[in-house]
Amino acid sequence: MVEAIWTTTEKDGRITVHLIDQRELPTREIDVPCRTHKEMADAIREMVVRGAPAIGISAAFGIALGAQEDLAPSDGLSFSSYMEEVALTIGQTRPTAVNLFWAIERMRPVWQKIASHPSRERTRILFAEAQAIKDDDIQRNRKIGTHGQALLPSKATVLTHCNAGALATGGYGTALGVIRGAVEAGKSVSVFADETRPYLQGARLTAYELAADGIPTTLITDSMAAMVMSQGRIDAVIVGADRIAANGDTANKVGTYGLSVLAREHGIPFYVAAPFSTIDPRTPNGQAIPIEERSAREVTHAGERRMAPEGISVYNPAFDVTPARNISAIITERGVFRPQELSDYLSSASSQEPVSQA
Amino acid sequence: MVEAIWTTTEKDGRITVHLIDQRELPTREIDVPCRTHKEMADAIREMVVRGAPAIGISAAFGIALGAQEDLAPSDGLSFSSYMEEVALTIGQTRPTAVNLFWAIERMRPVWQKIASHPSRERTRILFAEAQAIKDDDIQRNRKIGTHGQALLPSKATVLTHCNAGALATGGYGTALGVIRGAVEAGKSVSVFADETRPYLQGARLTAYELAADGIPTTLITDSMAAMVMSQGRIDAVIVGADRIAANGDTANKVGTYGLSVLAREHGIPFYVAAPFSTIDPRTPNGQAIPIEERSAREVTHAGERRMAPEGISVYNPAFDVTPARNISAIITERGVFRPQELSDYLSSASSQEPVSQA
Repeated sequence: MVEAIWTTTEKDGRITVHLIDQRELPTREIDVPCRTHKEMADAIREMVVRGAPAIGISAAFGIALGAQEDLAPSDGLSFSSYMEEVALTIGQTRPTAVNLFWAIERMRPVWQKIASHPSRERTRILFAEAQAIKDDDIQRNRKIGTHGQALLPSKATVLTHCNAGALATGGYGTALGVIRGAVEAGKSVSVFADETRPYLQGARLTAYELAADGIPTTLITDSMAAMVMSQGRIDAVIVGADRIAANGDTANKVGTYGLSVLAREHGIPFYVAAPFSTIDPRTPNGQAIPIEERSAREVTHAGERRMAPEGISVYNPAFDVTPARNISAIITERGVFRPQELSDYLSSASSQEPVSQA
Repeated sequence: MVEAIWTTTEKDGRITVHLIDQRELPTREIDVPCRTHKEMADAIREMVVRGAPAIGISAAFGIALGAQEDLAPSDGLSFSSYMEEVALTIGQTRPTAVNLFWAIERMRPVWQKIASHPSRERTRILFAEAQAIKDDDIQRNRKIGTHGQALLPSKATVLTHCNAGALATGGYGTALGVIRGAVEAGKSVSVFADETRPYLQGARLTAYELAADGIPTTLITDSMAAMVMSQGRIDAVIVGADRIAANGDTANKVGTYGLSVLAREHGIPFYVAAPFSTIDPRTPNGQAIPIEERSAREVTHAGERRMAPEGISVYNPAFDVTPARNISAIITERGVFRPQELSDYLSSASSQEPVSQA
């Protein structure tokens, strides 16, 4: 399976963190080796890596790289303040990426606790923690896959949008994790992948990683999804999520909302697959989710080539909100929830079991 | 207003037919002068011009160019068979374009009737006939505009898909003709233009010609239409048509069907604007309309640049079918019809007034 982030150990025992350059996929598979926390910060900022969980994991590895550097002070007090600088550098790369800060918060108590350990030991422990964050993410995605695949028939064609796959996560993926889970369960699964304009994550990333896994995949433009549904060719729509409100309203890549309306029109179940941490109990509903608008150039240009007239107005929201009523179920590592079951679960979970990213 | 096809007269009295190269719009406005019927045939084949009515008009001018050429025999019998060769060359350019053959059928009786006229006179009459076909088309579109604009409020935001504009017709356009009609009637109209993947007719052509007319236009990706509708920003969806079945089912650029579902979901009227000749009484319903599939490359590449992995499967239907139940009204030069009114009108029209392209 394709990986977004991996490590190699050099002869001298130093660890290099590698990213696949997602800006160049699928035409070029470029390995971006990061040997310092600044190299990792640059890679995150320049979108070599994208996808909320993958950004968080990269940040954690960036912090471990900082500890490995020759500049890292040996005494405990200086080490702690040095690490705060490392964290600041990494935290400033993508200021809206919540997972970035979550990863830093998870790493901080570790580096504080081991500040007076020998340098090699600190590095080893911090890399082990970053690796654990990655492994946890994969484990969580495998659970999402196991829960989600049970919803699919033994022969299923799934429509997906954007990339909620191995490349967006530590590995395995969320929406694509459900597809992989079904394949591992012996089901016959084929996929229609929306190309996902304007950034083409479907064409560039989803088609690439499913093809690499040998899962039969047909690429369509976003505008063809309705026709394919009307032909009776789709058994389920499965998408990822950027944020899920307490009532089940879900923000995801723009185009998701339209698909949810079309799925309902055609009687096709519509599933959201995401780690439980994507559910934000402090966001009551979709109206409270801020929607990022991105640059006009993503729409007007293909690479360097201008496709639209000079000076045309462009509206380019990155996300839209799918109301809970259009969602058949939300698939998480804790199980499958109907949107209306969420509130009850959140209330009971907050008293018994803290809702956390862990 | 932008024109797809126009003529100039040289000092020696010869006529040159000009096409704007629609493959290069909007970044380059290239005038493709056609001085022979073969030059016109090449231009049609290579898609310098597109849009069913525009192709028909170009074919008619191509025939007139044939008559103007030095090779045109002076005696009547040879002239007629020469003109059949001209027509054959033009007819072979886009074998599925019905308007191509319709234009040839309209020109044939003219050249047969004037075969023994002096060469200059034949040329003059055939160019006049081609010009009449173009003028008729514009007149028809203006009537569509007048009928259609009455459906819009005095302040309206219209969503359109693909290009059913001046560039697809003799001028003025069908869907865009309704928008122009509303502007001419003093209404305040703004437009959201779907970019219309994969060929980007919305970004390249609709945005271009509306900007040239100073009509406020916002470009969006196809996947954003649902979100914009849900925001309450759209008063009407207006699209063109490639073929309308007797029951009102309408084939148009892929993506149209999805828009019709979304419009209904949001309580937005959905209009089809097309010349009456687009209604085919011999096609009982949408299932009888053949859907052309186009090359995978349109989806996998942006210009020369590959955006999808090698070997990926692609489904690329050029059209989809919108069922009559999703269409609020069909706007024609003969007036506005609800789909359910069409059958009755077609029955009565076929007894009193032949349904024809004229």
